[in-house]
Amino acid sequence: MLGRWRAASAVSAGSGWWAACVCGRRLLFSMAKSKFEYVREFEADDTCLPNCWIVVRLDGRNFHRFSEQHEFKKPNDDRALQLMTRCAQTVMQELEDIAIAYGQSDEYSFVFKKKSRWFKRRASKFITHVVSQFASSYVFYWKDYFKDQQLLYPPGFDGRIVLYPSNQNLKDYLSWRQADCHINNLYNTVFWMLVQRSGLTPVQAQDRLQGTLAGDKNEILFSEFNINYNNEPLMYRKGTVLIWQKINEVVTKKIKLPEEAEEKEVEVTRTKTKVVPLHCDIIGDQFWEEYPEILAEDS
Amino acid sequence: MLGRWRAASAVSAGSGWWAACVCGRRLLFSMAKSKFEYVREFEADDTCLPNCWIVVRLDGRNFHRFSEQHEFKKPNDDRALQLMTRCAQTVMQELEDIAIAYGQSDEYSFVFKKKSRWFKRRASKFITHVVSQFASSYVFYWKDYFKDQQLLYPPGFDGRIVLYPSNQNLKDYLSWRQADCHINNLYNTVFWMLVQRSGLTPVQAQDRLQGTLAGDKNEILFSEFNINYNNEPLMYRKGTVLIWQKINEVVTKKIKLPEEAEEKEVEVTRTKTKVVPLHCDIIGDQFWEEYPEILAEDS
Amino acid sequence: MLGRWRAASAVSAGSGWWAACVCGRRLLFSMAKSKFEYVREFEADDTCLPNCWIVVRLDGRNFHRFSEQHEFKKPNDDRALQLMTRCAQTVMQELEDIAIAYGQSDEYSFVFKKKSRWFKRRASKFITHVVSQFASSYVFYWKDYFKDQQLLYPPGFDGRIVLYPSNQNLKDYLSWRQADCHINNLYNTVFWMLVQRSGLTPVQAQDRLQGTLAGDKNEILFSEFNINYNNEPLMYRKGTVLIWQKINEVVTKKIKLPEEAEEKEVEVTRTKTKVVPLHCDIIGDQFWEEYPEILAEDS
Amino acid sequence: MLGRWRAASAVSAGSGWWAACVCGRRLLFSMAKSKFEYVREFEADDTCLPNCWIVVRLDGRNFHRFSEQHEFKKPNDDRALQLMTRCAQTVMQELEDIAIAYGQSDEYSFVFKKKSRWFKRRASKFITHVVSQFASSYVFYWKDYFKDQQLLYPPGFDGRIVLYPSNQNLKDYLSWRQADCHINNLYNTVFWMLVQRSGLTPVQAQDRLQGTLAGDKNEILFSEFNINYNNEPLMYRKGTVLIWQKINEVVTKKIKLPEEAEEKEVEVTRTKTKVVPLHCDIIGDQFWEEYPEILAEDS
Repeated sequence: MLGRWRAASAVSAGSGWWAACVCGRRLLFSMAKSKFEYVREFEADDTCLPNCWIVVRLDGRNFHRFSEQHEFKKPNDDRALQLMTRCAQTVMQELEDIAIAYGQSDEYSFVFKKKSRWFKRRASKFITHVVSQFASSYVFYWKDYFKDQQLLYPPGFDGRIVLYPSNQNLKDYLSWRQADCHINNLYNTVFWMLVQRSGLTPVQAQDRLQGTLAGDKNEILFSEFNINYNNEPLMYRKGTVLIWQKINEVVTKKIKLPEEAEEKEVEVTRTKTKVVPLHCDIIGDQFWEEYPEILAEDS
Repeated sequence: MLGRWRAASAVSAGSGWWAACVCGRRLLFSMAKSKFEYVREFEADDTCLPNCWIVVRLDGRNFHRFSEQHEFKKPNDDRALQLMTRCAQTVMQELEDIAIAYGQSDEYSFVFKKKSRWFKRRASKFITHVVSQFASSYVFYWKDYFKDQQLLYPPGFDGRIVLYPSNQNLKDYLSWRQADCHINNLYNTVFWMLVQRSGLTPVQAQDRLQGTLAGDKNEILFSEFNINYNNEPLMYRKGTVLIWQKINEVVTKKIKLPEEAEEKEVEVTRTKTKVVPLHCDIIGDQFWEEYPEILAEDS
Repeated sequence: MLGRWRAASAVSAGSGWWAACVCGRRLLFSMAKSKFEYVREFEADDTCLPNCWIVVRLDGRNFHRFSEQHEFKKPNDDRALQLMTRCAQTVMQELEDIAIAYGQSDEYSFVFKKKSRWFKRRASKFITHVVSQFASSYVFYWKDYFKDQQLLYPPGFDGRIVLYPSNQNLKDYLSWRQADCHINNLYNTVFWMLVQRSGLTPVQAQDRLQGTLAGDKNEILFSEFNINYNNEPLMYRKGTVLIWQKINEVVTKKIKLPEEAEEKEVEVTRTKTKVVPLHCDIIGDQFWEEYPEILAEDS
Repeated sequence: MLGRWRAASAVSAGSGWWAACVCGRRLLFSMAKSKFEYVREFEADDTCLPNCWIVVRLDGRNFHRFSEQHEFKKPNDDRALQLMTRCAQTVMQELEDIAIAYGQSDEYSFVFKKKSRWFKRRASKFITHVVSQFASSYVFYWKDYFKDQQLLYPPGFDGRIVLYPSNQNLKDYLSWRQADCHINNLYNTVFWMLVQRSGLTPVQAQDRLQGTLAGDKNEILFSEFNINYNNEPLMYRKGTVLIWQKINEVVTKKIKLPEEAEEKEVEVTRTKTKVVPLHCDIIGDQFWEEYPEILAEDS
């Protein structure tokens, strides 16, 4: 909303007269627009049920095409994954009440706290702020990761919002996404080995893998390519978890004590809260025991 | 969704085996994820009522601050308005079934056709595709309009979705936004004249304008600043309407006729459909009579 | 809501002090309940989109079993159909803004006016008032239609609510129900003739009818049972339409004129609005042309 | 749904051919109705979020007037309260998955289990089945409680549906209703004593009570009317809780043992589950500790 910023921006001093002036303008406003203003009654309420975790998940639109046109490395492109995470960090920092985020491939899930009252829990606010902030950040930070690789066009993202009433439901949601990451990455890792190293056509690779179980794929990787899947980078296998962590920052400050003549340099430790990426398992209990504050009751 | 693009991208040839392979993978997939997959049941259906106009309106988030930090010209910054319109055009071209769009200040409304079946009319799809495409475009095209003015951070946008059952309701909605444009622009035009030319403080300017009607403001502009408000640029006074128009493009093609030895240059006229910006009144009947296809029954 | 009726019922005289007293009690009330009252925030808004027809359709619950236990005549039981219509009339009279209703078999649809603002258009209000009034009326009026046939247990009804944006959509909805009535009644008429008159078992009758078209069924009725389906009662073939009609009632009143000594009987014509049942076609245009007020714009 | 009961009712033997016949009829059906059947797409999905308690609360419509016309005893009419409870028991027995119900005055709340999948958790199904079954039962059982007092017209009820994600939320909801019962009943008890015994007008009684706290009201009852409020009937002060309880029924059965010539009477104990009314506190922990199965995880 910028429509009335000009007046407001200039007169940020008082609030008493501001209230008055708003009334004055509203009066005028409503007279002029009264005939049409009824259309606001068509706006539906989309408040989220209280005391539920609110998850917004976004996905790249047509990223199949997008990844080819921008020559993403297969099966995993570090630049693309790190850019996604950079955008997700921006979303967590700019928006309110996000307790945890999880990303893999071209998707990211953001979990708003159960007790959040941000924008009165209106679903459209949560979903549009997440995807728009993510999308603008994607273009803004692109060059930091893709260097000489030009961005050819502005990408789109779609999003959805889902409520989870219990902590177990939320953990199961995140487990679902991480299990999805694992299954896709294992498949893709073998597939591209078969294509890039063994010279199979994609169709041949697909036929070869059809019906195989996880153990079979591990075996192919090990016996044919000497790859131990468990040694593959954690970021590929586990995706990225973003959480808030208190970081102690040691900064040097110049202080002038009253009784002394000269300034003195002092080391000061400041605690800051930062968004930190992890590439760990979140399906088992260990993660949740290590970071109990994520699901804490006041969350 | 990119998760499975690698295999898919490589094997776009057949569809028979693809179906088979999808089945194969699904089987594996569901075994591994079956424990968690129940979380999908928490996704709510958000299908829009059929036979209604679907309007998505977006607004810049904190654009008051954004406009100051990027030194927008007051009360109207051509670069900012044109960038908004550039983004809106991208949205109309990239998404399906948008019949008309209207923008002013830092907001834009997109009207999807009554009969649209894009993404099965799911509200979250409409709203997230619009705001994400708009937001990424805003950063992408920024430099085309703001030249040396660096973009300092990626902006956010919020959006809402509203249904309008009848053509009259839709016209009244658009009239409401254009009336809003008029009221704000008249106010802002006088306000900034008083501040920039007469040297009033913002508070003084506001006091001066309190309780004034449209006629009073016109009079101040004319008598004190020799400005006829009706001569102000239409883009400021009316905002921007985006519609689809058939454009005849004359292109030169080289053609080699069978019986002739050499190629010949021929002028060919091609009809293309383009998104065209207008700055006209949409409150009266004239606009709708001139462009009846916008509200046409099959829309 | 009866909780506070006792005080209110007794003091219906003034409203000034009532407002005051309500405030007083609210204060006390909220102090005592403040700890729990937050649970009201979990109530979701269910306002219906404005400017749409609101249709509530109800169905008997397990009426298959109910009809057998109460020995309904097959394929049509006049008592049951007339009781349904009696209940529907009660619903139209007791509730607000119902423009038309249509019933057949054990179902009834009620159409609330596009512009209705009854209970702020809250869906749960419309749906629960309709089904509860209908259900209580069903038991209340049972004996007027079923005489000696005892009602064995209180029946249940389920309901749903659907919005229709345009008049054409609404007419098509009602046509859908009347077409359903026709198809079922034709089938049932032949089926029960085959069973009751020709002595077929139900399975044999069903086999005989499988794959037959409307023409085939008409032919069976005519050639085997000498029945012209078009002479069957309209109520069975068309169902029942309920509309509001102005009725002129002639009543006899005793009036004493000033200059005359004795009372005199005078006939006075009063216009009343009543709910009237019709058994006519509503698929074609004729009905809607005859009763244009049903779909009138201010409806 | 009764439309097709006639055929179905008669041929309940097999299901194979039934499926076949349904297909046959569907074909015909869809041909005839295809033009209108699109109207079904306007039906919105109203599935309740999984893993939440589903509460349906109903209220008598205009019961202020209803209670006067049927001469309810003030401030509490045993017949009316017991009839309400009789209806609520019927609702619990006829519908699925109701874990607990709570009633007071002319309202009743029904709590469906968190894990209930009855009618796929569709809100309209829950709400309409509850209110219609309650309303028909109200008329059906009226005479069992009101004897010679004729029911003058069929009453209406309105209902709403609310979701509660956690057990604490649900307990707080029920506490809210019981606190409401207490506050209203204390007020009404004093009010009617002042009117019926002290001869105050309703307005005078109201004035007398304005601003009084619970302690004040207890004091008036005790000092002026020699009533200890805590000795008032529990049903008035606490309302009615309905829960499922296992009841051991001893029945006498005649059994003929193989080796014996004559039948012998044997006492057999059968365990049945019944809906039992309680008038106890549900705000404190004791009730929930005594009946842990109500909130049990598999509920």
